[in-house]
Formats: sequence, structure tokens, C-alpha cells
Amino acid sequence: MENAAITFGARDDKKALEENPVFAPKFDANGLIPAVAMDAESKEPLMLAYMNEESLKKTLELGEAVYYSRSRQEIWHKGATSGHVQKVKEIRTDCDQDALIVYVEQHGAGACHTGRNSCFYRVVDVEKGTDPTALSFNDADRTFDPAAVYGK
Amino acid sequence: MENAAITFGARDDKKALEENPVFAPKFDANGLIPAVAMDAESKEPLMLAYMNEESLKKTLELGEAVYYSRSRQEIWHKGATSGHVQKVKEIRTDCDQDALIVYVEQHGAGACHTGRNSCFYRVVDVEKGTDPTALSFNDADRTFDPAAVYGK
Repeated sequence: MENAAITFGARDDKKALEENPVFAPKFDANGLIPAVAMDAESKEPLMLAYMNEESLKKTLELGEAVYYSRSRQEIWHKGATSGHVQKVKEIRTDCDQDALIVYVEQHGAGACHTGRNSCFYRVVDVEKGTDPTALSFNDADRTFDPAAVYGK
Repeated sequence: MENAAITFGARDDKKALEENPVFAPKFDANGLIPAVAMDAESKEPLMLAYMNEESLKKTLELGEAVYYSRSRQEIWHKGATSGHVQKVKEIRTDCDQDALIVYVEQHGAGACHTGRNSCFYRVVDVEKGTDPTALSFNDADRTFDPAAVYGK
């Protein structure tokens, strides 16, 4: 595999993890790291998914977001079915390198399997002081028909 | 406990989870849901942490971000030590309600224990085509002295 060429840094020194310019991502007990895809232009969150080591390396090689599907237990090249690929503009990692922000250019009509631009289309408006278990729709308008795109 | 008054929705109907205006967050096998704190004004990501059911309810009650510290295994009212509380402006949940975006007004000098405004201060610039394991600093300037704030 080509991505054997990418070798991440060691994680044995906490201070180095925080302050060194070396990418040393932490994969959890299930081999996963959370990755939040954000629209590179609008800065709106699109989705939160997970990557394993192989999918992160594929993401770096392809320049397109590749996740690991926990439900299907397989590598998930986002957009392979729908055409809605995510061109990666920038990846950020956090202080202890156990989370990723992936700024993307979302191709096609949207990131969400429900037919919306973003998966984060519902809001709990804490300041309103209303029932905190009621959600309002933030971006409810569908941008595509999931039945037409995914054929289900 | 006061937060016994908050009751989240049921999670037995996938379609309802996606389309109903009812907050029914999913806590994983460890009882946690990932929560990404974002600056409500700049829309920049600040940190990714986790909430358990109790800390999410406390967040809704207080209007300030309360996480669950995996390392300390305890409820973590962000800013209780540093004074850097996060006033919650809005919470968004995603299609299957297993992730949260928390838009906050970050009080004090910053969100990160390293003394920076954001934990996401390092960047893998995928488009440059350079070594993908090298990181550059995005927001490296410290906004506060962690030793002075945390006393360690």
C-alpha cells in the first residue's frame, strides 16, 4: 500500500506532542480519531465522523476526506456513492492530537445523507430559556433528494 | 438533583431521530458524546471534549459548558479553575444525534490548557504537497501563561 510511506510521530512525550511540529495523531481503543468536517469557506460545521489510521493516511494522499464507517466497519471514501466528495483544504489537530478539524470544499449538494448541506441542521437554543429538549431547525431545507442520489 | 427534570427523547425510531424536533442525544458505550466548542463570533473551533448525560444536563441548566473529563473521570465545569468559562450561545446536534457543536462565548484569555485561545493551533496544510506529517503553527501565540492560571 502506498500509504505505508506516511509515518506519524511518536506519542511518548506529552510536551513534545503539544509543542512540536510533528503530526502524531492518537487513535483511541477502537483505533479511531474524531474528525469534524467544516466548510472551508463558510466555516460552518458539516459533519462529525471518525478516521482510523488507514483512512487518515488515504485522506492525506488523496486530498479528499476518507473516513472509517463504524456502522459498516469499513473505509469510507466520502462521496464515492453520492459524488459529494470533500476536497480537503486544511487539517488542524489539537493540543494532545486526539481530534481533527478538516476544512473541506464540499462538492455536490451536501454532506448529509438526509439530503441537507450539513448534518448539524437542528439547534438547541440555550439562551431562549425554553424547553432544552426541544429542537428547532436551522438549515432544514433539503439541498438534494437522498432517494435520487443514494437510490434508496 | 435539579437536572433530573430534563428528560431526553427516545432513540428507538431512526427517522424520528433525524426529523423530529426532539433532543435525543446518543451516549456511546462509555456514556459519552463528543462536543466541539466553537467561538460563537469567529466560528473558529476552540476544543473537542466529551459530555456524559449529567454534564450535558448541567450545561443546559447553567448555560455554561460542562464536560466530562476522561482522564480525571469526573464532571468538568470548564473554567472552574482558570476562570475561562464558556458561556453557551447555541448547541447544534447532527442527523443521528451522536455529536454536538457548542457555540460559546469564551471568557478569559483562551480555551486551551497550553495557554492558547484554541486547542487547534497546528495545521497540516494538505494542499502544499509537503510532508503531511509536518505541522505548522496557526495560532501559536500564547494568550495567557498557563503556569500563572493553573498554578502548575
